[in-house]
This record gives sequence, C-alpha cells and structure tokens, in this order.
Amino acid sequence: MNYLMQIKNQKPLIHNITNTVVANFSANGLLAIGASPAMANAPEEAAEMASHADALVINIGTCTQDQVNAMIFAGKAANKKGIPVILDPVAIGATTFRTSAIKQILSKVDVLVIRGNAGEIAVLAGLDTEMKGADTLVDEIDSELAIHVAKKYRAVVIATGKTDTITDGDSLTQCKNGVAMLPNVTGTGCLLTAIVGAFSSICADIYDASVQAVCSYGVAAELAMEHTKGPGTFLPALLDELYDLSEEKVKAKANIRELTLKGE
Amino acid sequence: MNYLMQIKNQKPLIHNITNTVVANFSANGLLAIGASPAMANAPEEAAEMASHADALVINIGTCTQDQVNAMIFAGKAANKKGIPVILDPVAIGATTFRTSAIKQILSKVDVLVIRGNAGEIAVLAGLDTEMKGADTLVDEIDSELAIHVAKKYRAVVIATGKTDTITDGDSLTQCKNGVAMLPNVTGTGCLLTAIVGAFSSICADIYDASVQAVCSYGVAAELAMEHTKGPGTFLPALLDELYDLSEEKVKAKANIRELTLKGE
Amino acid sequence: MNYLMQIKNQKPLIHNITNTVVANFSANGLLAIGASPAMANAPEEAAEMASHADALVINIGTCTQDQVNAMIFAGKAANKKGIPVILDPVAIGATTFRTSAIKQILSKVDVLVIRGNAGEIAVLAGLDTEMKGADTLVDEIDSELAIHVAKKYRAVVIATGKTDTITDGDSLTQCKNGVAMLPNVTGTGCLLTAIVGAFSSICADIYDASVQAVCSYGVAAELAMEHTKGPGTFLPALLDELYDLSEEKVKAKANIRELTLKGE
Repeated sequence: MNYLMQIKNQKPLIHNITNTVVANFSANGLLAIGASPAMANAPEEAAEMASHADALVINIGTCTQDQVNAMIFAGKAANKKGIPVILDPVAIGATTFRTSAIKQILSKVDVLVIRGNAGEIAVLAGLDTEMKGADTLVDEIDSELAIHVAKKYRAVVIATGKTDTITDGDSLTQCKNGVAMLPNVTGTGCLLTAIVGAFSSICADIYDASVQAVCSYGVAAELAMEHTKGPGTFLPALLDELYDLSEEKVKAKANIRELTLKGE
Repeated sequence: MNYLMQIKNQKPLIHNITNTVVANFSANGLLAIGASPAMANAPEEAAEMASHADALVINIGTCTQDQVNAMIFAGKAANKKGIPVILDPVAIGATTFRTSAIKQILSKVDVLVIRGNAGEIAVLAGLDTEMKGADTLVDEIDSELAIHVAKKYRAVVIATGKTDTITDGDSLTQCKNGVAMLPNVTGTGCLLTAIVGAFSSICADIYDASVQAVCSYGVAAELAMEHTKGPGTFLPALLDELYDLSEEKVKAKANIRELTLKGE
Repeated sequence: MNYLMQIKNQKPLIHNITNTVVANFSANGLLAIGASPAMANAPEEAAEMASHADALVINIGTCTQDQVNAMIFAGKAANKKGIPVILDPVAIGATTFRTSAIKQILSKVDVLVIRGNAGEIAVLAGLDTEMKGADTLVDEIDSELAIHVAKKYRAVVIATGKTDTITDGDSLTQCKNGVAMLPNVTGTGCLLTAIVGAFSSICADIYDASVQAVCSYGVAAELAMEHTKGPGTFLPALLDELYDLSEEKVKAKANIRELTLKGE
C-alpha cells in the first residue's frame, strides 16, 4: 500500500490527546503528511471527538489525572467504534504517577500500537514482571523486551533508538533509518507516534503500517539533514520533507531488516 | 489609517485566551507586527488582565469548561470597559461541548468580530436556525451565510477560505490574498484572529480594521511563499514578513473587492 | 569552569514547570545546549520529578492556582534535596493573582536565582516595600533595585534589558551581549531562565553560573543574528547557535563589566 498517497487522498482525522510541549509540532507534522489533526484534550469532549476520528493518539507527556480520565474516555469510545488507538508512554517510570497513568490506560483501553524509546519500553516490560538487567547487550535486550511487551499487551510495539525495533510478538523488523539529530529536538518521538496513528488509520495491517511509518519518518529525517545547520533549522526542514515525502523517496533510502523469530 | 504603523507605534496589549496548540505562534505573530501579546488563560486572572488590554481574543481551540468560564469573565470585563472582543469558534460543531461553549460565550459576551473558516461560520449560522444545504455553490452560500451570522450576532464576520469574506451585515468585502500553504500550518487561522484583534484595538471602524487585517495577513503570506520550501520553512518566513510588512507592500498586492448588497 | 562542555558531558536534568506558550521553545533550547529537559507540570508528580532533577525552573507565565501549588510542592522537594531553584516571575504586577502567586512561592520556597526583565524586578522590589519612582535614570535604578531584591530574597537577581544586570547583593555584573531582536520572539527570556537552571545545576557558585549563562546566551543571540531575516528565522538560528556554542566563541564576544559596589 502507498500509505503516503492514501493519507494525502483520505485526509484521515487523527485525534491527539497529547502534551502541551509538542502539540503544535505534532499538529504541523500531521498536516505536513496530509492528515487532519484534532487536538482535543478536554474530558468534556474527548470521547465524542475520538468517536469521529480515524485514529486516536494518546500521549502522557504532561498529563494530570483529569487528562488520564479524558484519555480513558476517548480510548473506550475509540475501542467501541473499532478506531485504532496508539499510545506513547512518555517518560514512564520517571514518576509513580506516570507509571500509574499508563497502568490505568492499558487496563481499560485496547491499544493497537505502543511507541516509546528503548528505555520506556523497558519500563513497560517490567510494569508487573521483574525487569531484566540493564547492562546486558542492548540490541538483544531491546528485541526480547519489545517482543515481551508486544505479547503482554497484544499490541504492536515500536521501540525507537539508534535502531528502531517494530514487533507484534510474532514478527520483528529493525529499521536503521533516521538521524542522530532527532533526539536533539523535543517531540520528534511524539510526532512519530502521531504519524503511526495516521498510517494505522488507513490500513488494517497495523504491523505493516507501523513499519512503514517508522521507515518513512526516518527517511524524511535523513532528507531534512541536508538542509540543517543544527536542531533549530532541522525542525522546519523535517516538516518540509514530510510534506514532500513520497513512496519513491522512502523506497530509495529504506534500511529495513525483517528478523526471523526462533520458534515463536 | 495606516494600521501597521499605528500598531508599531502604540504596541497595543492583546489579551489572548487561546488554545495550547497555537499560543506560541499567536504570540510570535503579534510580536512580529509590533503588538504586545498577553497569554493569560487562568480563571483567576482572566477578567483583570482583559480589563487592562486593548483587545481581547477568545479562541476555543482546546478549551475546558473552566476555560469557557475564564473567557466569559474576561469578555464581560472587556465589554464593561469598551474593549473590543474577537472570537474564534475553532471546530465548532465538531463536538456538542464546543457548540455549547460558543453558545454560552455569545449569549453572555458582546463580540465585535467572529473569525472562522467557511465551515465554522456555516455551523454558527445554524446554531438555532436551519442550516442551508451544503452542496450549493460555495461562494454564494458563504456570502449569504456570513451576512446571516453577522446580523444574528451584530458582529463583523470573517469567513476565511480560498476567498475570504468580511461582512458586518450591511457591507461585504471579498479578499483573494493569501496562499494555499496557509491551511498546511496549524494556527494560521488563529493567528489571523489575533491580528484582527490588534487591528481592531487601534480603530473604532471594526469593519475596516477587519478588512485591512485580512488583506495584510494574506499579503504577508504571499511574500512568505517566496522564501518557502514547504510548511516548515513557511512558518518562520511568515513571521519574518509580518515583521517587515508595510502599508506600501500591502497596497501593492491587495486583492480586495467590495460587493454591493442588493436592497440591504 | 567550562559550563558549556560540562553541560554537554553531564546532561543535567532540568525540571521546568513553565507556561504553555514557551514550553516547546524552552525544551528545545535546553536540548540544544546539551541539557535534558523535563516538562512536568502536574501537581500529581511535580515534587517527585523535582527530587530527581539537577535544577528546578519555575515560570508563572500561564499558571493557575493548581500550578502554583505544583510549583510549591516541587520547590520544597528541591529545597530538601539541595537542588537549585530558579524563578521567572513572568508579568508579575500585571494582575493581583500573579503578584500573589509569586508571594506564595517566595514565602515557601528558597529560590537561588530570580530572572526577570527590568520591570518585573522593579515590581518584585516593591512587593512589600515602597516602590521607588519609575521616572529616574533607568540604568541606575535597575542596579539599585536589583541589589535590593537580591538582598531581600537572598537570591541572585538577573534583570534583563538592553543591559543585563546580575547581582547577588554583594557583587554586580553588567552584560551588554544580546540583540534587539530578542524581545520580538516570545519566550526568549523564559529560555534564558531555563538555561540559567542548566548552568546552576553544574556549579555551586550560582553567581558565576548566572553571569556565564547570561553572557553565553547573549553571544548565541548575536551569532544567530547573522542568519536572521526577522523574528521567524531568528528562532531556529538561535537554537542552532546554542547547539554549536563553545567557551571559545563566548570568550571572543563576551561584553561583561564587573562593578564595585560602594561600601557594600
């Protein structure tokens, strides 16, 4: 499927309940790829907005308990209508409130995709099981942990880092697209989560949508680096490249490897 | 009146109760044209801040009921002091809460200007009257609906789109300035609303202020396109051009048509 | 001390409880110099987040009473652990609520640095003493007022303006770095406050850290002006220059003057 063309044609409505730090950047990134963002955080309207959307993206970046409630209202409404729900567990583990927020959400909402950095996915793996040691070989642990989390929550897990890992528990893909500049700009992970929402909104194969979203975003970042002097100019360049991105450009630079899972 | 020069000279204080997605961009846009933005959303201070301002801009983009209350407190304080109030009914109709929020505000606050896209103005027309069919010729409908809304709320109505329509119910102006890139950047409509606030703060002729604000903003957008590779670079370019805008530049590119209203 | 190198090496965690207008810009500015921002405003987690941080930055830009409470929880937690607390009294004096918010915070939290513009520091001086007349020679008043505020709150005071004044009550430094474009971009003062937090997190000499932060930021702004057409392009240029800043670049352009305080 040509996701980028489909998104431009269908303009899916992506409902984001996200943090105040990245809301502007996420909305602009979604607009850039052709989706239609709705940023509606209020508990008063979250469920109704979600029920009209093509995907719901939940991000706990700056949330209060009121926001967690809004996320659960919206998540349940999305579940009822079969609208894909994507979760970004920002800084889970940093405070007990964040960990509790994610526990509440995951116990009440069926989430199709969880996108976090390697550390966040590791915390998620240990929510109610023992964490594995942190000092073993990172790449291996990432894959194992990601598979563990995917099975535990029956969700596609995207663990981003130098290498991005995407797994649904049965299959696993590694993507090496992207640039070292990404973590120097706030919200680049959150925007990827929102874009996964857009890709997931137009295709029932959520695993494939997740892989393509991650790869496309990484390619856009690589192209943006060509017009970048630092993180300040990287930001507008990334939006420009997302706007101008095409299936052809992505294919030309895609650096994806599907791994066979032994006996799983 | 040379609005741009007057704004630079007087630095009017524009109090914005706006959404978290666009607050930064609105503040930067107001600073760029020489106004002084105050972004004070808290119910605890909204009325006091509004009573010191030269214009109050209300935008329901991400509001909760608490925010609606703050807007009403501020609106009443502004009304009492004769400070112009500008309203942006973002995504009215998308949820019952949004429609209710706008109803509450319009029933309790005298609003001088309502700025929305064509769809929002259409919803506003139908708040308590029957909506006209949506499939008739759009430009014609826009004008009729805009006039209807202007008369209903005794306000200047600005309905933006490919052609922008400005009407106070008696006169109607169409403006064809602006660029197709504008809707690809979040908050460009909200920023126009804020700029209408700045123009309205320095001139008693709110209709003329509205026309000039819309035209000036469209011209700035056209100039910005010359330094733009996509929506990412359009954003800083727009701020640069607003900063550098002059009466002369606007006049050279103004594409405005005043329509005679039959029998009105 | 080479602050910039130390920050890049240590990646201090700077916890910001700041306003929604500038949160994105502050986070990006902190990332640019190599610090690790945490933007966690919720009363539910503010104290816990602060207790893990290397500095706490409090900014009342868009705060509600709930936010003030979160700031006090976080401030007390930081005080208990000896973590430096930096305060930005945005628009203090504009409303009684803001003045009250700052009074509450300063009465319950030990603040190491207060960063405001000249007007804000002047209001702070008059919180419970008589304000001095505003029409006397501004530069002189600034210094006297700044010293007064520093002694009153036993804090380093940074009063920014054409000339920046940094004083701990005993010593006073004037810095003339920076550019006239800075006040044309929202949040440039708030970002300086956040950067003072980063500098303060790696050195016990808070006065020296404050002077170096102010000077470094001003130099970055001067370098950014070379790639700037207006406030729109200044913003990404400033982030680029903060990212690329070095002790050598700062030393080459530093415009600092230490004043001897008579009889103090």
